[in-house]
Amino acid sequence: MLHSILHSLDKTFSFKTASAHCDIPCKIYDPSTAQICALSMVRLVDLINEISDKEEMTTDDHAQLVRLVNEKETHGTKLKDEIRVIWGDYFKQPQIDKYPDIHTLVHQLMMQTSKGKQKVNREETIKILELVNDFATIFWETKGVATYVATCPYPPSLAVVYPKLDAL
Amino acid sequence: MLHSILHSLDKTFSFKTASAHCDIPCKIYDPSTAQICALSMVRLVDLINEISDKEEMTTDDHAQLVRLVNEKETHGTKLKDEIRVIWGDYFKQPQIDKYPDIHTLVHQLMMQTSKGKQKVNREETIKILELVNDFATIFWETKGVATYVATCPYPPSLAVVYPKLDAL
Amino acid sequence: MLHSILHSLDKTFSFKTASAHCDIPCKIYDPSTAQICALSMVRLVDLINEISDKEEMTTDDHAQLVRLVNEKETHGTKLKDEIRVIWGDYFKQPQIDKYPDIHTLVHQLMMQTSKGKQKVNREETIKILELVNDFATIFWETKGVATYVATCPYPPSLAVVYPKLDAL
Amino acid sequence: MLHSILHSLDKTFSFKTASAHCDIPCKIYDPSTAQICALSMVRLVDLINEISDKEEMTTDDHAQLVRLVNEKETHGTKLKDEIRVIWGDYFKQPQIDKYPDIHTLVHQLMMQTSKGKQKVNREETIKILELVNDFATIFWETKGVATYVATCPYPPSLAVVYPKLDAL
Amino acid sequence: MLHSILHSLDKTFSFKTASAHCDIPCKIYDPSTAQICALSMVRLVDLINEISDKEEMTTDDHAQLVRLVNEKETHGTKLKDEIRVIWGDYFKQPQIDKYPDIHTLVHQLMMQTSKGKQKVNREETIKILELVNDFATIFWETKGVATYVATCPYPPSLAVVYPKLDAL
Amino acid sequence: MLHSILHSLDKTFSFKTASAHCDIPCKIYDPSTAQICALSMVRLVDLINEISDKEEMTTDDHAQLVRLVNEKETHGTKLKDEIRVIWGDYFKQPQIDKYPDIHTLVHQLMMQTSKGKQKVNREETIKILELVNDFATIFWETKGVATYVATCPYPPSLAVVYPKLDAL
Repeated sequence: MLHSILHSLDKTFSFKTASAHCDIPCKIYDPSTAQICALSMVRLVDLINEISDKEEMTTDDHAQLVRLVNEKETHGTKLKDEIRVIWGDYFKQPQIDKYPDIHTLVHQLMMQTSKGKQKVNREETIKILELVNDFATIFWETKGVATYVATCPYPPSLAVVYPKLDAL
Repeated sequence: MLHSILHSLDKTFSFKTASAHCDIPCKIYDPSTAQICALSMVRLVDLINEISDKEEMTTDDHAQLVRLVNEKETHGTKLKDEIRVIWGDYFKQPQIDKYPDIHTLVHQLMMQTSKGKQKVNREETIKILELVNDFATIFWETKGVATYVATCPYPPSLAVVYPKLDAL
Repeated sequence: MLHSILHSLDKTFSFKTASAHCDIPCKIYDPSTAQICALSMVRLVDLINEISDKEEMTTDDHAQLVRLVNEKETHGTKLKDEIRVIWGDYFKQPQIDKYPDIHTLVHQLMMQTSKGKQKVNREETIKILELVNDFATIFWETKGVATYVATCPYPPSLAVVYPKLDAL
Repeated sequence: MLHSILHSLDKTFSFKTASAHCDIPCKIYDPSTAQICALSMVRLVDLINEISDKEEMTTDDHAQLVRLVNEKETHGTKLKDEIRVIWGDYFKQPQIDKYPDIHTLVHQLMMQTSKGKQKVNREETIKILELVNDFATIFWETKGVATYVATCPYPPSLAVVYPKLDAL
Repeated sequence: MLHSILHSLDKTFSFKTASAHCDIPCKIYDPSTAQICALSMVRLVDLINEISDKEEMTTDDHAQLVRLVNEKETHGTKLKDEIRVIWGDYFKQPQIDKYPDIHTLVHQLMMQTSKGKQKVNREETIKILELVNDFATIFWETKGVATYVATCPYPPSLAVVYPKLDAL
Repeated sequence: MLHSILHSLDKTFSFKTASAHCDIPCKIYDPSTAQICALSMVRLVDLINEISDKEEMTTDDHAQLVRLVNEKETHGTKLKDEIRVIWGDYFKQPQIDKYPDIHTLVHQLMMQTSKGKQKVNREETIKILELVNDFATIFWETKGVATYVATCPYPPSLAVVYPKLDAL
């Protein structure tokens, strides 16, 4: 259904690829994947707590606990990777000059995500989401893209920073 | 900076988790990752063509070609996985009854993505993006979330379906 | 010891590769890997139950439970991938016309495998094996290869659909 | 369709699990995956040669070459892993006493598979298949399962050792 | 700070690459990664025992147990892979003639590592380290590099075989 | 052969685990893996250049080029991960206070490794090794372990920073 819009767009847009920013370099950077990872960590803590609040755990509960902890772990590692890529490949001298605290923010994010992996603690995982949101805000600012905050349309229904885009 | 908003939100929101939809089930489904994969495939075709348009290829060009093809391949596989998860875990009888063509759409997506992997062809990869956008439109409709179309804020600057969210 | 047979075979066989079916396309499709995954899931449920039936669990038991759940999870994901590849790359319009229910069968397989991952339940994992056997039967039929049912030569010793091949 | 057979089988079979053989231990060992890997390597060499026989290579051909080499590589590594698992977990003193050359055969398989990865050479990859078939023959012998040789029902249509099973 | 040393070295060294030894062949073989894996397995057993010695386990403890078991598992598999690569790619006829027991040692290592994965047992994991140290000693001997034994500079502070290198 | 030393050591050593440093936390940090990755990247550039210096490339050469580029890529990514883990998990406020430039060094390492992945350039990959050596020097200093520089005992035979350990 979007065929005609896409095709016309494709022709009228002349995208300037000034200088190489990334590892390929492909220039497709998007903090949304890291944000989904942070939301998943909060959500998984909620699900783990649902199980551990039970009086007695069944075999199914024990098995499910293993799966939930693994998923939390996986999302934590993925989050670190996503942030590492944007920071290590996209942030160059001009961006660092403008946001001199970016190194400290990224390092805090690494440490906080480790904490979120080591603990089953909602507050600690929410802090990860907040730091990722801070990172996303800065990222979009460096690209001159405005942002807004909205509740993500799925659990755990927390505030997420999104780029403000003009509807076609 | 978002701390207070997040905390108040967290308390006022009472999210109802009616029935299990996913593999964990964690209920965090988001077609945005598949959309980024499709955009990446288009972008990587563009970059491959930049190299193959050269009169003569250097060793660097040969090596870069390998990297670009690998990335295109990786994004194609990831796209298939992302769609397979949403389709296989989230779409249940009620959603299928409302969108009886979903199976055919997903199967087309699989075949089209294979084509996009086998060829270095912009048109074929754009068709993947269009199918993923169709899938995203349906997905958000099943959740009662409105959508809008905007140009993604990075290359290849094509039209992407986004959920319409209320700014907090 | 098979050298001479192999070499003569290699020369006398003229294999016609009519049209591209797969992602490479390499045309080597074999549902046996998915069948082994399903058998493994049943087997792992048996092993988990052996542990959870104990009066008291030792540290070794707790650790082994984690390993068993992880293996069950891994085999479930692998099974889904294997089926997704054959369905998404090999099944084209002619095969779909002949087996119009294939989409529904594959979707059921995805949902049933998720159930088998979420639960420690022998009946649910046996249902996965049955669906994979159904899929294998159809697959070999589309290739004009006859099948037979035999007990697999290792635990959990359940009925598996095999292609009927002529001994050389 | 196999439901009733499966259920009755399940009840009448009392499988004795004498002693632990594997890493979990789950006791599901099957050389078929390694055999499929070897067949894939031969097949991929054929496909690579089809491309390199062309007078001139297009961009599609260059990209396809990358994909084919990667797949050959992946199957080679998977083959080594599969053999390593069966050899390292299933073969214990009793099996080694009966087949004292098993260590040498496995080591040859590792070296030959490396050769098959380094070269685009049909003969070298066929030697891998022959060694894997030798390994499979010995493996099934240790389990008291008879074998037969048949042409695999897909390209590259070469002779493969299969376990002889009684149809139910 | 090492720039000038590196550059001068680079020029004065004429490294002879006699014959292909490895899978690439790249000739960079180093048992240190396998040794770190063995040390990690011992360390993880210690950490698992710290938790299981507690009177009562919290949710955090349960989750941490899952993480520790997974890490032990991962290091066991990585260890097997590292050894398999050096043995399968580097050890050729001349090395085997000189160390005819290498096959048996490697097979023992595989079995012992499986045992270390299946149990939470310090003695069993220390036996893995001992076997890896034996393997490292032989490996460095085949290359004519002398070795010494020292306590590794981190927990679990056990004796490790290192190559004796001349300080520049 | 090291059995008795290991066992006695094991008893006399009482290792104090003061405070959690890592993701597990397991406290086994070792920059040697990152150093081997950097050496591998240099080595792989050398091997790629050997091929591209040829007058004419055979199919084997083309395929080998793909493998070499992939290996270079893999080692680059692994290097980034290894450094990210040590920096993000081990470096805490005390270490940062003592080495305030560590963030900048790590960021430079990320950028330089990307450059090494994008180019087939010996100088650029040697710069990666130099930065990793700088990182290793600082790392061992924070732990109070002296270091020395030696030529690594395999190609590309470049200067590497090693911890100075007392032979037992």
